[in-house]
Amino acid sequence: MYAYIHPEIIPLANATLHVSDLSIQRGYGIFDFCKIKNGHIYFLNDYLDRFYQSAATMRLPVPLDRSDLAAMMIQLIRKNNIAESGLKVILTGGYSADGFQPGTPNLLLLQSPLTIPPQEQLLKGYKVITHEYVRDVPGVKTINYTTGIWLLEKMRQESADEVLYHSQGNVSEFPRSNFFIVTKDDQVITASSNVLKGVTRKNVLKLASSRFKTVEGNIALEDVYKAKEAFLTSTTKRIVPVIEVDHNVIGTGKAGEVSKILLNDLIALEEEDQMSKKTA
Amino acid sequence: MYAYIHPEIIPLANATLHVSDLSIQRGYGIFDFCKIKNGHIYFLNDYLDRFYQSAATMRLPVPLDRSDLAAMMIQLIRKNNIAESGLKVILTGGYSADGFQPGTPNLLLLQSPLTIPPQEQLLKGYKVITHEYVRDVPGVKTINYTTGIWLLEKMRQESADEVLYHSQGNVSEFPRSNFFIVTKDDQVITASSNVLKGVTRKNVLKLASSRFKTVEGNIALEDVYKAKEAFLTSTTKRIVPVIEVDHNVIGTGKAGEVSKILLNDLIALEEEDQMSKKTA
Repeated sequence: MYAYIHPEIIPLANATLHVSDLSIQRGYGIFDFCKIKNGHIYFLNDYLDRFYQSAATMRLPVPLDRSDLAAMMIQLIRKNNIAESGLKVILTGGYSADGFQPGTPNLLLLQSPLTIPPQEQLLKGYKVITHEYVRDVPGVKTINYTTGIWLLEKMRQESADEVLYHSQGNVSEFPRSNFFIVTKDDQVITASSNVLKGVTRKNVLKLASSRFKTVEGNIALEDVYKAKEAFLTSTTKRIVPVIEVDHNVIGTGKAGEVSKILLNDLIALEEEDQMSKKTA
Repeated sequence: MYAYIHPEIIPLANATLHVSDLSIQRGYGIFDFCKIKNGHIYFLNDYLDRFYQSAATMRLPVPLDRSDLAAMMIQLIRKNNIAESGLKVILTGGYSADGFQPGTPNLLLLQSPLTIPPQEQLLKGYKVITHEYVRDVPGVKTINYTTGIWLLEKMRQESADEVLYHSQGNVSEFPRSNFFIVTKDDQVITASSNVLKGVTRKNVLKLASSRFKTVEGNIALEDVYKAKEAFLTSTTKRIVPVIEVDHNVIGTGKAGEVSKILLNDLIALEEEDQMSKKTA
């Protein structure tokens, strides 16, 4: 396996950063993560859009422009030659002279085989607990998962598969995925504020809007408890039904029809994306 | 210069972590920072207390017990032999197999020369702006400074020296230091919640209580604006008067008498600590 540490591709085993990097000193950095199959990067432009937006918001200049970054991603993917993988693009605060002021950002490309539970297993659905929290800069994919990782133990204690963030009575997102509900009258709703705008979230919003009334707005915790269906969206897991929230069964407690329809639509959209563009 | 990357002391230039470390992947880790002069670590036991508490809260086992860690700090300090320095003890989430679950934590000791502005300059005081924010796990010295570093640009734009966090009308702390006010009737107050319990904060509370009415409680923003004095406390800067908050002059706009008395008391306490224990 190889990795890219700007400006070169090197063996992953040798991919290190000096301890003065601001990710190690102060947890400062952004990243993005996309899915690759047989050399094709799904929805590449969406991920690049978000990566450069995150970098701009956090005031981290990216050392490669968009076309050079895409070319380097493709070069690394060809070199590693893995059938199904995920590719992380990390941009850190760089080597800091005083341990606080950002230096020249370090850009990393890290590819790894995808280990996703099979779709049948995911369709059994997730049991979810909730936690009051808003990420530091919610619109940006920062590397800060202090709370998400700290909650792993609470999830284990409560035998939960995921933890849903909420604030002032409204739910927002999971640490690494977005959240949707389907109301009894088949409205599809996802939270509009305090969330990262996921690429799968965007695709599901588009797909849902051609079939159902689709809303980006507020979702109160009570709306969740009385929803007909709920699900999460993520790059790797696509759509996973949420069948329990805080020990309240959602809908029938099984994967709902709308969730399954949207999952099939999403799989079809991925196939379309793969057909339309040969990116690698 | 040398650094300690558990389990060995190595040249600082070679001190690296593999990119799978959870600090780089997810900004997950804790640290502490103490001050050293002529081989003496000031208030060592207080820093060790807090470091092990932070580690326990974030569920990161420390690979050295307390006496071995102290011994290793002293060994590194002797080897580097710098007159005045700061020593950072960092504990990261370790090399993570899946980029999210913590591995075996990596322990780093990083020493660097102290570059503090001279006391006369600090006594001119800081101009401060405010920002609504509570750190992720406020009682713990995590490495997450996403918001603090992101605010550097806002500080530059407003020619501010520091940014004071507040939430729901109450002020709490600075990104890297604590906050005190002195009321018109000479009460010394520091925030009790949403703060890191600084070692200098603890020392100043103790010193203040022998001279003044001293309170850990709520400080509303309006209390700050009408305070007679305000100051910050930090390991490196000790006590720095706060002379302006959001462009409102505090007190006379100059270092106040109580701030100066407590600074002198603190310097005396440091000397006492240096005399009483030969730690290195």
